[in-house]
Amino acid sequence: MDGPRRQKQILIVGLGLIGGSLALALQGFEDYLVVGAVRSQATYDKAQARAVAQRLSFDPAGELSQSDVVILAQDPQGIMDFLWDNRDRFRPGSLVLDVCGVKTAIQQAARCLPPTVDFIGCHPMAGKEVSGIDNAEATLFRNTHFIITPGQDSTPEHLALLERMAAHCQFRDVVRTTCQRHDEMIAYTSQLMHVIALSVCDNEELFSCMGFEGGSFRDCTRVAALDVPLWTQLFTLNAPALCRVVDQLEQRLRAYRLAIQAGDREGLAAMLERASERKKQRNFEQARGDDVRAPF
Amino acid sequence: MDGPRRQKQILIVGLGLIGGSLALALQGFEDYLVVGAVRSQATYDKAQARAVAQRLSFDPAGELSQSDVVILAQDPQGIMDFLWDNRDRFRPGSLVLDVCGVKTAIQQAARCLPPTVDFIGCHPMAGKEVSGIDNAEATLFRNTHFIITPGQDSTPEHLALLERMAAHCQFRDVVRTTCQRHDEMIAYTSQLMHVIALSVCDNEELFSCMGFEGGSFRDCTRVAALDVPLWTQLFTLNAPALCRVVDQLEQRLRAYRLAIQAGDREGLAAMLERASERKKQRNFEQARGDDVRAPF
Repeated sequence: MDGPRRQKQILIVGLGLIGGSLALALQGFEDYLVVGAVRSQATYDKAQARAVAQRLSFDPAGELSQSDVVILAQDPQGIMDFLWDNRDRFRPGSLVLDVCGVKTAIQQAARCLPPTVDFIGCHPMAGKEVSGIDNAEATLFRNTHFIITPGQDSTPEHLALLERMAAHCQFRDVVRTTCQRHDEMIAYTSQLMHVIALSVCDNEELFSCMGFEGGSFRDCTRVAALDVPLWTQLFTLNAPALCRVVDQLEQRLRAYRLAIQAGDREGLAAMLERASERKKQRNFEQARGDDVRAPF
Repeated sequence: MDGPRRQKQILIVGLGLIGGSLALALQGFEDYLVVGAVRSQATYDKAQARAVAQRLSFDPAGELSQSDVVILAQDPQGIMDFLWDNRDRFRPGSLVLDVCGVKTAIQQAARCLPPTVDFIGCHPMAGKEVSGIDNAEATLFRNTHFIITPGQDSTPEHLALLERMAAHCQFRDVVRTTCQRHDEMIAYTSQLMHVIALSVCDNEELFSCMGFEGGSFRDCTRVAALDVPLWTQLFTLNAPALCRVVDQLEQRLRAYRLAIQAGDREGLAAMLERASERKKQRNFEQARGDDVRAPF
């Protein structure tokens, strides 16, 4: 429908939990049409029934030439494959994003794009224990961090557009960092939490301990009910950073175990004092609002 | 004030988070007077200002002969010392409870009591990240588990009394088990969660990762801001069971790390599948209400 004034278009490829929620949250954003690209008839029907996007398509490749913004919301492997397969189809001057949980691997894959396309890796720090379009909602991003990893070539116009989109989705803030720093941080703050939750659930007592759990057990194991293919990719694509923090955790656990085993109350108290003080200090800094923007 | 009908009395020794909350929750329980014993003037003043108990005392030992129920709500060492120091002062036929987080060590300490006193170790599965009377509240126990570890000699009358007290405090259920089983389960469901939270907070990235954390990080590290002297005691008094589950966790983490390091997507996916299925199954059983009573 190109007329004298072409309709601007945001294409979201993949309407799962994140893509579907972005499609819902972006409705009414300036004068952009929100188009959702799906693969399966089942997702199409659900997206249509809930009016997740203003228009739906089975042909993301065919939409690229008309799309000013493309949001790749597949799993990491799906994003990398899509970038390669369609590297010559993106609209010159368009902004292309991905919204998956690893950034270095995706950034490397995006090198196949021509210089006329501005690629920025993004990561909304939002999620649920459940996945898929059924669980998508417009308010998923409210009060969460939106991490972006712009390169040297990202234009000020595109960065400003991204900020406005984030504000429209009600993100708490936009955190700018590098791909490498993102992957290091995310290994610690997110991926490690998932490895812990899985490891705790591997214990034979998981089913016999009913009646003995309090809030801490439910909170810690909550994220173990994860999307297996997705997290297998996220873990392996960020292997060096993730293995480093898992190894650090193993060492810390071992240190606690040895202090407890030795019955050394003074030494153990000093360890607990140090760690709990760090946590209290962290809570304090958080309450002061120091985490609005992370150091670049 | 002994008259023709003596006023029945519940004495709560220690008005911290748990003792103070029990004092508040037990008000109006049948025809019992709730008496709170404190050590410091500061706690006395706060307890009086908030009417935490119906009467306050600086002399718990002097109250024992008039107390039909005694709830020991100090830290574990305080409980063990109190039992020993006052072993001959408890009222014959009285019910004596403790409400701390380890049971075998306390049960052993309670062996000094004469056979006329019925001692039952208890553990309300409730808590907060903050401690002390300032944070006590009558509703702390609502919908949580009340674990009890009665011995062979506990009378049916005392067990029935305990059930009625638990119902008055709005506990979700009363879970009966042995001291040994309690300590094994609690090592896994509670103490391990605290060791994990502390270990995660020991990482150098704790302060640099602001802006990168989602719900899972906040949930997992929440309990690290703990009461150091209390948890030092809880950990060391339950050393064998706790060290066993920490060791198991170290082994699981190592297995994940090696699979991730090897880049073996299939093997890793199988591990994730197994653990996440266990968690999903566990959620399902929980939703069905199978955890109302733990297997004895």
